[in-house]
This record gives sequence, C-alpha cells and structure tokens, in this order.
Amino acid sequence: MKLGIFDSGAGGLSVLKSIIESRIFDSIIYYGDTARLPYGTKDPQSIINFSLEALDFFNSQKIDMLVVACNTASAHALKAMQSKSKIPIIGVIEPGIKALQNKITNQDARILILATKATIQSGQYQDRLKALGYKNLYAIAPSLFVPLVEENIFDGKILEEVMSFYFKPIDFIPDAIILGCTHFPLLANAISQYFQNKSILIHSGEAIVDFIKHKIPTQNTSTTTLKFFASSDVESLKKTARKWLDLPNYSFLKT
Amino acid sequence: MKLGIFDSGAGGLSVLKSIIESRIFDSIIYYGDTARLPYGTKDPQSIINFSLEALDFFNSQKIDMLVVACNTASAHALKAMQSKSKIPIIGVIEPGIKALQNKITNQDARILILATKATIQSGQYQDRLKALGYKNLYAIAPSLFVPLVEENIFDGKILEEVMSFYFKPIDFIPDAIILGCTHFPLLANAISQYFQNKSILIHSGEAIVDFIKHKIPTQNTSTTTLKFFASSDVESLKKTARKWLDLPNYSFLKT
Repeated sequence: MKLGIFDSGAGGLSVLKSIIESRIFDSIIYYGDTARLPYGTKDPQSIINFSLEALDFFNSQKIDMLVVACNTASAHALKAMQSKSKIPIIGVIEPGIKALQNKITNQDARILILATKATIQSGQYQDRLKALGYKNLYAIAPSLFVPLVEENIFDGKILEEVMSFYFKPIDFIPDAIILGCTHFPLLANAISQYFQNKSILIHSGEAIVDFIKHKIPTQNTSTTTLKFFASSDVESLKKTARKWLDLPNYSFLKT
Repeated sequence: MKLGIFDSGAGGLSVLKSIIESRIFDSIIYYGDTARLPYGTKDPQSIINFSLEALDFFNSQKIDMLVVACNTASAHALKAMQSKSKIPIIGVIEPGIKALQNKITNQDARILILATKATIQSGQYQDRLKALGYKNLYAIAPSLFVPLVEENIFDGKILEEVMSFYFKPIDFIPDAIILGCTHFPLLANAISQYFQNKSILIHSGEAIVDFIKHKIPTQNTSTTTLKFFASSDVESLKKTARKWLDLPNYSFLKT
C-alpha cells in the first residue's frame, strides 16, 4: 500500500519514523510545505488553502491513504481535505485523543494541552475531550517551543525560563500532557522534568500507528520505498530526514 | 510619487513608518509575503523566487520606486530583482552600511552584525564592510530574536538568557552593532543594555530615508495614501499596521 504523509515541514518526520517501523506500507510519499512553514502562527483560511494545495499534489501521486502529520493542519483543514478526497485522510488529533483515552480513564484528571496558537484557537482538542466527559482541561500555546527545537535547544536555562513563562498559570502537576505539535516530543524530557516526571505524556504522532492498524489489514512489508517532496529546498528536507530517521540502512531512501 | 515597500511580513512596517514621516511619497503600496514568512530561516533560491514573485505584483501596481525592507530579501534577491526591473529598487543593506560609515570612521572599530541566518550566510554585510576597510567584524544570527518579538517579549529573563546564549563569544563591548533585521530594533534597548549602553546601534530601516533623499528630488507631501496587500491574511497585517504605525490620524489608511 502507498501512503502519503503531509506536514508543514520536517516535524512530521517523527510520525514518518513510527510509520516506517510499523512495516504497514511498502511505499511512502512525504511532502513538506517548507516554503510556507510554520503553519502554527498563521490564520485558519491560509492553513486550509495550503492544505488543499497539498491535497492536489497527493492526488497526482495515486496514494491509498493520507496522514496529515501536522497538528495545525489537522485542526483546521482535515474536514475540508476529506470532503475533497476519495481516499481516507487521517489527522493526528483523533489518534492522540484515543491514546489519551486508553491511558486516562478518570474524567476528573487534569489534562494540559500543548499546541500551536492556531491549533489551540481551533478548539479541536478541547472540544473533543469535553465531548468525552473530561472536565479539567488546560490549553497553552507555547509559541517559542518550535523555534527552540529548530535551534537545537532541548534543555538548559533558556528552555527553563521559557517553560516557566508559559507554565506559570499551571500551579499543579497535570495528570496528562498532550504534546499537540510534532516538534514538542523533542522537548518531552524537559517538559516531563518540569512537572517532576509525574505526568503522562501523550505523543500524537506515536498514537497514529495504532490508529492506522485498526483501519487497515495487517501487513508486514520487508522494505519501504521513501520519496521526499517539498515546496522549497527539498535537499535540506532530505538531509534532515537522514539525520532524524536514524535508520540502519538508507539504501532504500530513493529521492 | 508612488513607492512600493516589500517585506516578508509585518517587520517592514518600521521602515514604512520612517518613510511616511519623511513626507516624500504621496502614495505607498505595502506588500507582505505573510503566507511564507519568515524568510530568514529559508534557503537562498527560495528567497530569490519569493522576491521575484513579489516584483511581479509590484509591476502591476505602476510604482516609481521599490524598497525591499526585509534584510534577508535584500541580501539574497536584490540583484535578481534589479536585473528584472526598470524602476529603481533599494535594499536596506546599503543604507545601513552608509549610516555606519557616517558614525564610525575608525576602521579598527569592532562591529557586531546581528541578522538572520540567511542574511549572515549571504556575507553581504561582512563583504561590504571589509571592502570599506573595516577590519574587526563579528557576525551572529540570533534566530530566536524574531520569535521573541513576535511573542511580544522585549525584556526580562528569557531575553537575558537568549542574549547570553548568542553573545557568549563576544567578550568585549562592540563599538557599533548593526541591527540587520527589521524585528531587531524592537529589542534595541535590551541589546544596548546588555553591552552597558556603550555601543552605537545602527537601524538599517531608519537609514533608508536619508538614502532615498539623496536619490530623488525633495518633496513635501501633505498626505500619504497607504494600501496594504499580503499573500495571506491581509486583515491581520492591517491590524498590526494600525498598532505599530501609531500615527495621529488613520483616515488616510485606505485599504
């Protein structure tokens, strides 16, 4: 089966990695809208327009399924994309919510949602969790987290100050923290430590593999052909992919 | 006369403000490539492509002169734009260099260049200053400065830690600091204080008015018609413009 993965840039590579390791797909097309990243600080209509343009690209690639790895695009554009597509399109929010449901059954649990401004403003995580009965929801958009990760800052004083700045209103230990942006798992250790390693962290990207496995018949491919596309500077995306994926053998990394 | 101002987003509004106050132009068209900002972290060829697309837009607006307010676009795309245009196109780098020359005559002065990654990598500031005989040049790309400004952080502990992080290699007081990004003047106070208020700060944007005055006959317009365009979310750009420009009367702010 042939899968498409759409992200605003390189953040979705963590999702790609989980999916490769699951051995479900023998062919994967990754497309990053690197010319227009980041999405998380942009307005809803632009995010929808960008995502529909990406869908046009994937339609030309004859894929069997599309994963929207970007939380911001999932939050704002998933419905618009699904209404214009004949193949299944999966976002990262629903799998993230399902993963939380599996781990947190107490509906009084205090849940901290961390995501981009655009994702938080969409209300997607909050509305879905409320509909499931969760009562104590706290949503924060730590906008500096993405540029910190891009600057390879994963610990240290700057990150500590930045966390204090955003987490000031949270004067308790959350029972669960949703890492609602593909960049945030790279700060998981620091975020966890900030809350004394007592919170359960939910990675939306990791959750997607379980979600897909419930949708399609189990496969066990021996190799996966990868192809990378980007709206600008695809070479830089490939370079990041080689570094991030950290796979034992790159011979199948066709480009 | 009708002027065009091109920026990757809202940063060029500081340049727009200086130009409005100069009363040289009776009509100004501002275009921000808000769909694809920021430029400073992107690759040279993309920056050139984006800038040439902006030039196409300005060609349809029948302007007499174009100012590239964005340092990154000035650094990478100015020549390409000039070669495809019949009207004069002015970047912010040359005016910034001229302003420094007026203030710093000692060629042994220690000059710190602060700009985006893409601008620093272009070597434009460094090469031009070297050609003028300046010997002691230090170039730093403090990538977190732009997101800090976007997050309205202009002082405090986070900024102090971020400055310590980037300025670590500078164990002396620079004689001059070039603020080579439209966002950086908003951190001017903090940067100046970091270096004990002993450095001369050069704002490339402010320098451009003097530069234009040498190029065209003096005018003294009574009103300026402003029009704003953006590649996405023009309403948000207009809102920011109303806030940043802080002009006494917005009745002329036609949109």
